[in-house]
Amino acid sequence: MPELRLNPATKDWVIIATERAKRPEEFGSGILPVTSEEKDHCPFCPGREDLTPSEIIAYRTYGTAPNTPGWWIRIIPNAYPALVPQGGQERFMTDDFFTYMNGLGDHEVIIESPEHSQTIATMDQKQVEEVFLAYRERYAALARDPRFELVILFKNHGATAGTSLRHPHSQIIAAPITPLHIRNRIEAAMHYFDDHGSCVYCDMVEKEIKLKDRIVSESDNFVAFEPFASRSPFETWVMSKKHCSSFEFIVPEQTKELAFIMRGVLAKLYRSLNNPDYNLVLRSSPVHEKNVEYFHWHFMIVPRVSAVAGFELGSGIYINTVIPEAAAQYLRDAT
Amino acid sequence: MPELRLNPATKDWVIIATERAKRPEEFGSGILPVTSEEKDHCPFCPGREDLTPSEIIAYRTYGTAPNTPGWWIRIIPNAYPALVPQGGQERFMTDDFFTYMNGLGDHEVIIESPEHSQTIATMDQKQVEEVFLAYRERYAALARDPRFELVILFKNHGATAGTSLRHPHSQIIAAPITPLHIRNRIEAAMHYFDDHGSCVYCDMVEKEIKLKDRIVSESDNFVAFEPFASRSPFETWVMSKKHCSSFEFIVPEQTKELAFIMRGVLAKLYRSLNNPDYNLVLRSSPVHEKNVEYFHWHFMIVPRVSAVAGFELGSGIYINTVIPEAAAQYLRDAT
Repeated sequence: MPELRLNPATKDWVIIATERAKRPEEFGSGILPVTSEEKDHCPFCPGREDLTPSEIIAYRTYGTAPNTPGWWIRIIPNAYPALVPQGGQERFMTDDFFTYMNGLGDHEVIIESPEHSQTIATMDQKQVEEVFLAYRERYAALARDPRFELVILFKNHGATAGTSLRHPHSQIIAAPITPLHIRNRIEAAMHYFDDHGSCVYCDMVEKEIKLKDRIVSESDNFVAFEPFASRSPFETWVMSKKHCSSFEFIVPEQTKELAFIMRGVLAKLYRSLNNPDYNLVLRSSPVHEKNVEYFHWHFMIVPRVSAVAGFELGSGIYINTVIPEAAAQYLRDAT
Repeated sequence: MPELRLNPATKDWVIIATERAKRPEEFGSGILPVTSEEKDHCPFCPGREDLTPSEIIAYRTYGTAPNTPGWWIRIIPNAYPALVPQGGQERFMTDDFFTYMNGLGDHEVIIESPEHSQTIATMDQKQVEEVFLAYRERYAALARDPRFELVILFKNHGATAGTSLRHPHSQIIAAPITPLHIRNRIEAAMHYFDDHGSCVYCDMVEKEIKLKDRIVSESDNFVAFEPFASRSPFETWVMSKKHCSSFEFIVPEQTKELAFIMRGVLAKLYRSLNNPDYNLVLRSSPVHEKNVEYFHWHFMIVPRVSAVAGFELGSGIYINTVIPEAAAQYLRDAT
């Protein structure tokens, strides 16, 4: 029979109901061939730098000019920004009832490689390290702007995950508010800390390492596992073993180790699930609460292998058709 | 520039950023032809009653036997239930850390018509009234079972909204828990009541009727409008003008009026957006708090015209590319 599981860190309930499960190979859609139409118009390919806004920074060969080829990582403002670095944090009210504010924030694109058809799962280790060093640099830059409250780093891989451009890229958005969604997570972790005197994420990592059955992979300082209450099949969290509330504090050496474990997990998903669409999200503490004892930054990988439908929209309860322990076993066994 | 808007009832922030907006006609995917493969295997078509679990109830012609043709509305247990009417409400704990419980609940399918290719937007008024009378009957039946905490009635229209079967149907799930997602909404409304002495939804209805610019349509007792902080293009809420916290209390005459306004709104969306995929969700108070002064049942229609991507997953903030006042105007003008 189905089971309801509670995530101890987020207090989200999920339903684990395996009746409708697909076979893991059916989750992905395989690798579509690159059409010449697609390749000839990609604004992120080298040589087409004039099709994008001027770069903020690029990791490029010495002597090459900005906005020309020669880069291996390129960071640009999003051409269609969700938020822009203008306006203030004040709230306005209309009709004595509705609150609004200017769309203050920032929205950048991190182009992860000059090569159109690569993805983190297929890049070499060195390139993935550069991607994560770029994440670190841009996260820290935006997190230090006092006008912002929250910095969200994310990646949409594949059409159902919300991207139309195959060229590998991530995005980073700085927002001037802390949404209720994040406040809920902070509050749950804070209450846990008050009750137990420890970080719920630290305790989770300790439990998972001891229990072993939901572990996907492990390195000296990081662990990848399927959460007990995974909201969707093959949802994977990657967490540092040592407590740290903000991604802003990661040092370069650990960033490379993180790149190693992330690449490994994404390669397992890519190969064993046949290139599934997925979202990658960094959860880090709000930037003005960056050094707290109750929160713990982590990456969430959410394969988009089942639809979010009316029930999820209406209740916030997710239905997961794969038992997290079985998903972990499957990924551990994948080469 | 973009704008951030706060929903006064849910305390959800949304970003209104119109840079990437499509034209409304591009939101839908049109009407796909019915293949004979599809028609020959549909388990919800009359004559194939043996392909589904035995009916719970059906609205059928006098003298026709259960699980045979002759019905115009048929309600069956979901063949792949997310929750089942077994087990109790007690929580269990594993490894001194993880909480879980039996998948207690119920999961029904409401087949809305014997006709495979109809949808609420194209059915005649009488049939839509029967659909809503069935909603009322099944909602009330599940809401009165003391083992359940929350009853979610929903409809997934189209593949991106989470359905693979075109034959028109809705679902109803009873859950033995009140998820944080619902608690948040209750709490926000409760605080509003404590601060103002009135229901935030009642006040919203009053404001919208006075302002007029987000109204889609109106009848004696109901109003359809685009919320000030719509999370996605053409999100529409349908609400009773008079305070009522639970859908359980709706009377048959008002149910028919509700069917009239819902059919009208769905027909406008169907025609003017070219048959978009959508989710329809009923929000009603948790069943053990059914008669409260601070909550107000309503239907949400959420066209699936933009992807929920990494940013939304990570922050809970939605990006809406259509200004709600413009969406309302567009729908008001649609015939």
